Amino acid sequence: MAQVAPENSIGVFDSGLGGLTVLREIHRLLPQENLIYFGDTARVPYGNKSAATVIRYSKEIVQFLLARNVKAIVVACNTASSYALETIKQMTDVPVIGVIDPALRALVRTASPQAIAGLIATRGTIQSGAYPAALQRLGGKQKLVTQPCPLLVPLIEEGYTEGLVCELIVRDYLEPLVRQGVGYLILGCTHYPLLAPLIRRLYPQFHLIDSAEETAHELAAVLANASLNRKEGTARIELYVSDMTESVRMLKDRFFAGKVDIFTEAQLAEY
Amino acid sequence: MAQVAPENSIGVFDSGLGGLTVLREIHRLLPQENLIYFGDTARVPYGNKSAATVIRYSKEIVQFLLARNVKAIVVACNTASSYALETIKQMTDVPVIGVIDPALRALVRTASPQAIAGLIATRGTIQSGAYPAALQRLGGKQKLVTQPCPLLVPLIEEGYTEGLVCELIVRDYLEPLVRQGVGYLILGCTHYPLLAPLIRRLYPQFHLIDSAEETAHELAAVLANASLNRKEGTARIELYVSDMTESVRMLKDRFFAGKVDIFTEAQLAEY
Repeated sequence: MAQVAPENSIGVFDSGLGGLTVLREIHRLLPQENLIYFGDTARVPYGNKSAATVIRYSKEIVQFLLARNVKAIVVACNTASSYALETIKQMTDVPVIGVIDPALRALVRTASPQAIAGLIATRGTIQSGAYPAALQRLGGKQKLVTQPCPLLVPLIEEGYTEGLVCELIVRDYLEPLVRQGVGYLILGCTHYPLLAPLIRRLYPQFHLIDSAEETAHELAAVLANASLNRKEGTARIELYVSDMTESVRMLKDRFFAGKVDIFTEAQLAEY
Repeated sequence: MAQVAPENSIGVFDSGLGGLTVLREIHRLLPQENLIYFGDTARVPYGNKSAATVIRYSKEIVQFLLARNVKAIVVACNTASSYALETIKQMTDVPVIGVIDPALRALVRTASPQAIAGLIATRGTIQSGAYPAALQRLGGKQKLVTQPCPLLVPLIEEGYTEGLVCELIVRDYLEPLVRQGVGYLILGCTHYPLLAPLIRRLYPQFHLIDSAEETAHELAAVLANASLNRKEGTARIELYVSDMTESVRMLKDRFFAGKVDIFTEAQLAEY
């Protein structure tokens, strides 16, 4: 294994561009850290694909990141965190952080044990059972009510985050949670924070839990603990995508206008 | 090249399962023909991916089909037909049939030269300009009005083909065509025939043009002309997918209940 040093980048990946919500929080909290993001836009979405396929794709991306000597890996995709986290941890000695535990730690910390939490996520994340398993492991007593939302990622990737169609689909998915007495809503997909303004307007009674900020804090703690945090300097931000689509061009500027040093298409097949 | 004989199968492929609408028409018209279908469910959808990526994926699938000695290839995907048809034709001597020319031949045959035709399709199909180019090549004088519908494939792959959400999205996409005086509506994506009942109910004034039936007729003519049609016997139908997802299991029985001989996942990376 190559030498891991504070100068090395933090690797972050997602099925597409949703994970940029996590990258943005990491950059906000740790503005001096060098970052490499990989979005698998040639194969997005992951949420309705099988476990075997999501694990295979995740391994290819982790190999890409490890080849760039990352000092930590953030799996900024709930579906990949659900299916592939253990596999990824076995591939490397650098810290690997998913988005599920941070979200659930926030729930356990802020909600009463009697609270009912709704989990909205892709079909894959929900079918994996990763959230209930992690909640139990973390000692949370809250009740989890799950709702797969297979259309939200396509909607968001197409730029629909407001408007009647979006509102109707969100209502279709969230009304059953209202009826079940949900008070906390876990945004169990890194795309969903882009719908937070709409959800807050429609359902002001929900307390939203977004893993992006929590994940950034967990990453900061892990790096500090391993003395791997970069103390000063300006961040170098590199964005890689497996397909340079229209949506990529549209979304990049929305997130990191003027801050990205490298922005390019990379073929995973070569790795 | 291996010997091509009437017993050999016809290869049909699509980004996902939408191309089954074409496979079904082929089987209806040519019930004795052996068929191999490949659906790239591990990488669906193609419609918002770049030309380079769609061409790369199409070549991999064509290699898979050619390795099985197909006697003809039907590109049952409008996005792949738009971007990759010429590339595929250069890979083989067997007949290669896309879905665009058959749809436009139906338009030219049935519509007056003054008619206005609406084209609904993926963003990729529309950006490629393949439809206007083909219409000109076929000598059609009809005016083409285009409308990208990026959300229809995700909706259909999730099984939404009726209901309020689906109706609203369809209306969003089709109202501009009504205002532009469209009389003929080309379903420029092999998924869209699954929305035909809804579209007929909302817009009875449109004359729908679906390439599936036309493509089957063109295939029949090409095979007969090359003396490659299988004269008798029962069809062997093989379905391959690159990912055995939930949607695959759901949709297979909807299309070919009890008729499929081989139904399996196949890794393209091996080819």
